Amino acid sequence: MLSSMSSPIPGALLLCIDLQDIFLKAMPDAGRLSSRCEFAIEAARLLGIPVAFTEQVPQKLGPTAPQFLKAAAGGTRRKPQQLAKNTFSALADDGIRETLLEKHKVEHLILCGIETPICVYQTALDAINSDLQVTLLTDCLSARRPDDAREALAALIRLGAYALPSETIFYSVVGTTEHPAFKDYTKLVKKYST
Amino acid sequence: MLSSMSSPIPGALLLCIDLQDIFLKAMPDAGRLSSRCEFAIEAARLLGIPVAFTEQVPQKLGPTAPQFLKAAAGGTRRKPQQLAKNTFSALADDGIRETLLEKHKVEHLILCGIETPICVYQTALDAINSDLQVTLLTDCLSARRPDDAREALAALIRLGAYALPSETIFYSVVGTTEHPAFKDYTKLVKKYST
Amino acid sequence: MLSSMSSPIPGALLLCIDLQDIFLKAMPDAGRLSSRCEFAIEAARLLGIPVAFTEQVPQKLGPTAPQFLKAAAGGTRRKPQQLAKNTFSALADDGIRETLLEKHKVEHLILCGIETPICVYQTALDAINSDLQVTLLTDCLSARRPDDAREALAALIRLGAYALPSETIFYSVVGTTEHPAFKDYTKLVKKYST
Amino acid sequence: MLSSMSSPIPGALLLCIDLQDIFLKAMPDAGRLSSRCEFAIEAARLLGIPVAFTEQVPQKLGPTAPQFLKAAAGGTRRKPQQLAKNTFSALADDGIRETLLEKHKVEHLILCGIETPICVYQTALDAINSDLQVTLLTDCLSARRPDDAREALAALIRLGAYALPSETIFYSVVGTTEHPAFKDYTKLVKKYST
Repeated sequence: MLSSMSSPIPGALLLCIDLQDIFLKAMPDAGRLSSRCEFAIEAARLLGIPVAFTEQVPQKLGPTAPQFLKAAAGGTRRKPQQLAKNTFSALADDGIRETLLEKHKVEHLILCGIETPICVYQTALDAINSDLQVTLLTDCLSARRPDDAREALAALIRLGAYALPSETIFYSVVGTTEHPAFKDYTKLVKKYST
Repeated sequence: MLSSMSSPIPGALLLCIDLQDIFLKAMPDAGRLSSRCEFAIEAARLLGIPVAFTEQVPQKLGPTAPQFLKAAAGGTRRKPQQLAKNTFSALADDGIRETLLEKHKVEHLILCGIETPICVYQTALDAINSDLQVTLLTDCLSARRPDDAREALAALIRLGAYALPSETIFYSVVGTTEHPAFKDYTKLVKKYST
Repeated sequence: MLSSMSSPIPGALLLCIDLQDIFLKAMPDAGRLSSRCEFAIEAARLLGIPVAFTEQVPQKLGPTAPQFLKAAAGGTRRKPQQLAKNTFSALADDGIRETLLEKHKVEHLILCGIETPICVYQTALDAINSDLQVTLLTDCLSARRPDDAREALAALIRLGAYALPSETIFYSVVGTTEHPAFKDYTKLVKKYST
Repeated sequence: MLSSMSSPIPGALLLCIDLQDIFLKAMPDAGRLSSRCEFAIEAARLLGIPVAFTEQVPQKLGPTAPQFLKAAAGGTRRKPQQLAKNTFSALADDGIRETLLEKHKVEHLILCGIETPICVYQTALDAINSDLQVTLLTDCLSARRPDDAREALAALIRLGAYALPSETIFYSVVGTTEHPAFKDYTKLVKKYST
């Protein structure tokens, strides 16, 4: 699942932070966020970029919402990797850290999920401090407090994170209308355009 | 009161600039500002970060508004430190400068209060020029002229100040749901979320 | 057509990305975009800055919309250069790359067109990585998703692109009311001011 | 008039760009702009910062609007310096350049006026390239096209210009409630606060 051997962005992994219903419900734009994250997850799967999910205290707060796991499985029986944690930073959890950095040799974290100023912020900061490349998918993030999200994102950019819309990343991977996945990819773009 | 020995951010102090009623009343978003500053002060107290208040010509303009002093005392009889000044920059006052830098060995000023383009700006600039680390709590600032506040904040960031939402700072200090103050901290977040 | 010998910005070329009706129709601000691009093209022609057009799979999606070709021809029979491609980046097409960099010795790409986060982004990024100077005309860009456009533009600026309004570029070329084209230029400014 | 010997910002001059009625009328926020520029001019005069005005082709387009000249004279008979030009950049005019740089030894241009993306932009750029310090008064600028103004200002900041609200500058000069001009200055702040 996490193999990045055949990835079009070697060493990259899309890490979806805490996409659990209990957090989603608290977002002011839950519908938009859900749609954009589903797009990013489906596009990553289509193009061969590995995907994983963190879950904050899932035994108490519940697992990742089903639409995201379904998007990652893509009609197969593959079970997406779900990584439990009780730290706000995914990389402050030794197990997750070892899974991502040691086992799967992740060198580039592509981040989406909730909340930008808390778990996304702390994960991105730890990743930057661990010399990983960090790219934040600007349309796939949310927070209870949108102004806080804007300031936290700006701070991460100043600290060295990349911030780009998901379509910009995936259109760059596709590169040309001759790419074998071009038609399927444009179908995804349209499916999630409303 | 100001001891930073047991602080989770060694050398840091939350300095609340001129939270006096006469200035608060002139703010276009006084209610929001007051709520966010109370949150930051209560969270700092809960987590062990020292807090102090500056007051502009208090003998004439009155002391810090009582809700902030109460938030800093936290039900104890401790009297929060109130620092009188007639300079716009807190660090242009020799007494305050000595109290903060010499006596309490402050190395990192976390700033909130009013007004961003005047007393907060001048204090932050003097702190940067004195080689202190400066963090502006973006949700805990205000000004009569919001566009001026935005430009002054951007200028301070370009000069080396950090700017982050208060929740981002305090969730980073808490770090994990296992932190002994986690439950009390999340109560504060909820109390001030409306 | 592409000669930059007499150009007021030596080595510069205005490259209009994919101004085809099929894409224009999908823009939320097609009228504004069309008007600003016509202005930029007419001003470039008036002031002697070469202009070229890229077209995404034109045999299938149609050519550049006629108003832009007309603006480039300026009442003459000169046929503006139209460059077909199926890559999202104009510079990922070997033919376009050779035409621009080898044949016409372009050193500075001035970019307008659609969409900012896709073909404009990828073209600008390739140009920066090829050591070209890149200037994005901020009022002459558009995208289906305006927030994505804003983030992609900000990312390009951080990577070294210049971003300026078209009037700022052309008023800088004109420089003084004594410039022989000053009156004709101000007529253009007025013509496209509504 | 232009002597900066006794200025609180040595070498600084407030240069008001093209505040002529014909341009003012075309601004979408002429009333706001006029009020803020009058404030800046009165405050500069009060605090001893020299002020000068550029005028674009005044023999044809008319002189600086009278309220600004009156603010600079401050009830005295002193005639403010009015500098005619036909270049968009004030420093592209040899006479103005000599007056400012040679005669008055200006090392720091504080700029206000119209239009941000044209004459203010070109003047600021030439000043930066001449190793002057440049500070743009963010509340004292305007343009027909506000989005263009925002982009041009951002570009100048990236090129090294400072950008600060006028009150931020002048409150920094005043520094303390003990400053002899403090009361007169706060009267100005109130006079122009509506």
